[in-house]
Amino acid sequence: MDPINKLTELFSEFPGIGPRQAKRFVYYLLRHNTGFLNELSENISDLKKAIGTCSICFQYFQKKNTQQTLCAICADNHRDQTELMIVSHDVDLEHIEKSGVYKGTYFVLGGVVPILAPKPEDRIRSRELLALIKSRAEKGLLKEIILAMNVTPEGENTEQYLEKILTTIATQHSIKISHLGRGISTGTEIEYSDKETLKNALQNRK
Amino acid sequence: MDPINKLTELFSEFPGIGPRQAKRFVYYLLRHNTGFLNELSENISDLKKAIGTCSICFQYFQKKNTQQTLCAICADNHRDQTELMIVSHDVDLEHIEKSGVYKGTYFVLGGVVPILAPKPEDRIRSRELLALIKSRAEKGLLKEIILAMNVTPEGENTEQYLEKILTTIATQHSIKISHLGRGISTGTEIEYSDKETLKNALQNRK
Amino acid sequence: MDPINKLTELFSEFPGIGPRQAKRFVYYLLRHNTGFLNELSENISDLKKAIGTCSICFQYFQKKNTQQTLCAICADNHRDQTELMIVSHDVDLEHIEKSGVYKGTYFVLGGVVPILAPKPEDRIRSRELLALIKSRAEKGLLKEIILAMNVTPEGENTEQYLEKILTTIATQHSIKISHLGRGISTGTEIEYSDKETLKNALQNRK
Amino acid sequence: MDPINKLTELFSEFPGIGPRQAKRFVYYLLRHNTGFLNELSENISDLKKAIGTCSICFQYFQKKNTQQTLCAICADNHRDQTELMIVSHDVDLEHIEKSGVYKGTYFVLGGVVPILAPKPEDRIRSRELLALIKSRAEKGLLKEIILAMNVTPEGENTEQYLEKILTTIATQHSIKISHLGRGISTGTEIEYSDKETLKNALQNRK
Repeated sequence: MDPINKLTELFSEFPGIGPRQAKRFVYYLLRHNTGFLNELSENISDLKKAIGTCSICFQYFQKKNTQQTLCAICADNHRDQTELMIVSHDVDLEHIEKSGVYKGTYFVLGGVVPILAPKPEDRIRSRELLALIKSRAEKGLLKEIILAMNVTPEGENTEQYLEKILTTIATQHSIKISHLGRGISTGTEIEYSDKETLKNALQNRK
Repeated sequence: MDPINKLTELFSEFPGIGPRQAKRFVYYLLRHNTGFLNELSENISDLKKAIGTCSICFQYFQKKNTQQTLCAICADNHRDQTELMIVSHDVDLEHIEKSGVYKGTYFVLGGVVPILAPKPEDRIRSRELLALIKSRAEKGLLKEIILAMNVTPEGENTEQYLEKILTTIATQHSIKISHLGRGISTGTEIEYSDKETLKNALQNRK
Repeated sequence: MDPINKLTELFSEFPGIGPRQAKRFVYYLLRHNTGFLNELSENISDLKKAIGTCSICFQYFQKKNTQQTLCAICADNHRDQTELMIVSHDVDLEHIEKSGVYKGTYFVLGGVVPILAPKPEDRIRSRELLALIKSRAEKGLLKEIILAMNVTPEGENTEQYLEKILTTIATQHSIKISHLGRGISTGTEIEYSDKETLKNALQNRK
Repeated sequence: MDPINKLTELFSEFPGIGPRQAKRFVYYLLRHNTGFLNELSENISDLKKAIGTCSICFQYFQKKNTQQTLCAICADNHRDQTELMIVSHDVDLEHIEKSGVYKGTYFVLGGVVPILAPKPEDRIRSRELLALIKSRAEKGLLKEIILAMNVTPEGENTEQYLEKILTTIATQHSIKISHLGRGISTGTEIEYSDKETLKNALQNRK
């Protein structure tokens, strides 16, 4: 295949990119100097060498040296180890960190459990999550697991699946499983709220 | 002015209707039979005769006879008189009623208090609200006032104004002033939540 | 039915208006003074008395007296009677007039012929159109009929139907049947043009 | 800078890509296998080696060998050399080719001339265009130059600039300068057409 079409095809696999925009990317690169292309090319091929996956929370992080296995959050003694927030993706963790409202630790599932998925345990890092909780619980370190999935059918299904696989160990070690609070959020207009949100907003009033 | 343009002008004042759509309305009416036009015309001119404003909560309601002064909710003994939910508009009340999650009583402000509005008391039914709360409080009937404004700058400003004018009487009669709970709502994606919502969702977790 | 819901239902039949916006209209009217409602009501009920349909071109026009049967354009000697532009709706005629690019006369079909419509002659004023063309052709007044439908499947189907029913009389009296020119229009980007448009634009280049 | 942010920054320069989507691209790559990354990386770094710029029309084309200097269209004897269509970008040429409506030759300007641009001759390949026209005109090969810019302010400004710089040579050699035909295009509704389009559609009627 000719390189323009080959590269168009590769860019078409990028999230949210159709063939037309992918083609634009290629023309954009053709108009750029070779220096930019080489820089882009090198950064892509080196990406995985420079980036590791944290052995505790599984978020991506930049390795300062080849021995480093922990991300900055998991390596930080000041983070509250008694709280573990479970998120679907790195972007969620990053977004919550940026808000500065949470001082506990995280675990990145790396996905969601779609409704009726035949093998839910293969969609997310369920084994790694259970291992982490077990180890931390046995040291008596864990008090609360916070499920922080999107309020979408897939996100809610993931929370249900997590509750199911975590309930035994949570009960054994008196760990609370909590969910982010539901209610009206910035921009909500009462007139357009769904019933579920109104019900939660009324129950959680204060 | 010619009747097509005159009617176009009147329809242009309808909420959300520009001159082009207003003109379409007029052509739409021209194509309809005279019966439809007369029915529409009569319903408009009779609207205010048939519809009253409840003397307690100020929502619009259909009068069954000329003596009727109370809406169905205020006339219903089974509604919980100890709870008073304050909303901005009739549509909000109607939407909450449709959800079926609330069994108390309402008060319709008839507006919002815009930020820096010079005479906030004239923007909403503040005097009528205070009179209702006073009368119900003195009978020992009122336990909680629920502020249910939109989560918009105007809505939040309205809630602040209400808290200011209600605080004295609420304290005197041990009435709780509460707000609809804040948190993540249906459709919320963690990645796109604002800081305020994340903070509330974390605080209200359960 | 209660007047709020009755009026909501009537407004819901307006073009482009759903039940929610229809309800907003009713609340909007409830908040207005009785004077506005009466003015609106009267203008609606009087609309058909004040507005006539031109006996030549069938556009709506404001009658100055009950005898008046012609619109301003058909009554104007300076309009070029040798050209007859056929449009679907009053809004089209009005829009072309506003542009000031045309000095001939019009005929308003009052509709379009949908594809596969069983009785196309009932969808538009076909009989009235044929009568007008016959009368004007016999006086030797008519040189060109311009079909000015939307470039949509329905519009194009209407043009085809018109060509079919007009071809005999046009041939007899040497009347040219023409179509608005096709090509690229304001805002067109070559990259997103359809094949038909590119073909026409190339053929009609100048 | 850390490689995730560095790559995010590079992708942010892609047309139509903001920092958030750029970050998504990086996470997308992190989740992919090294094979995909290497393939992408190689295709980017090799892009310019495999792709040439045609020495006649300046479109990009895949080189079959290092000696090849002409694109498939310019190397094709069956294309009509008497017609030269000038387009702004490769995508325009490609789109017109796909439509199959044109059998002449092309020239790719590589840009547009923005309104009030201080040095218009530097925004597009004006010198290369003049050289090509001169050489082809002197051989008596060129009969028509077709300007095929977008119908946008920039596109129309580019056409005006081209007419200015081409008028002398076109007059000398009796070459016609034409523009794509203007009129109503697929999807046009008469009611929403601008004056310019209606005027052109009326003038170009047929």
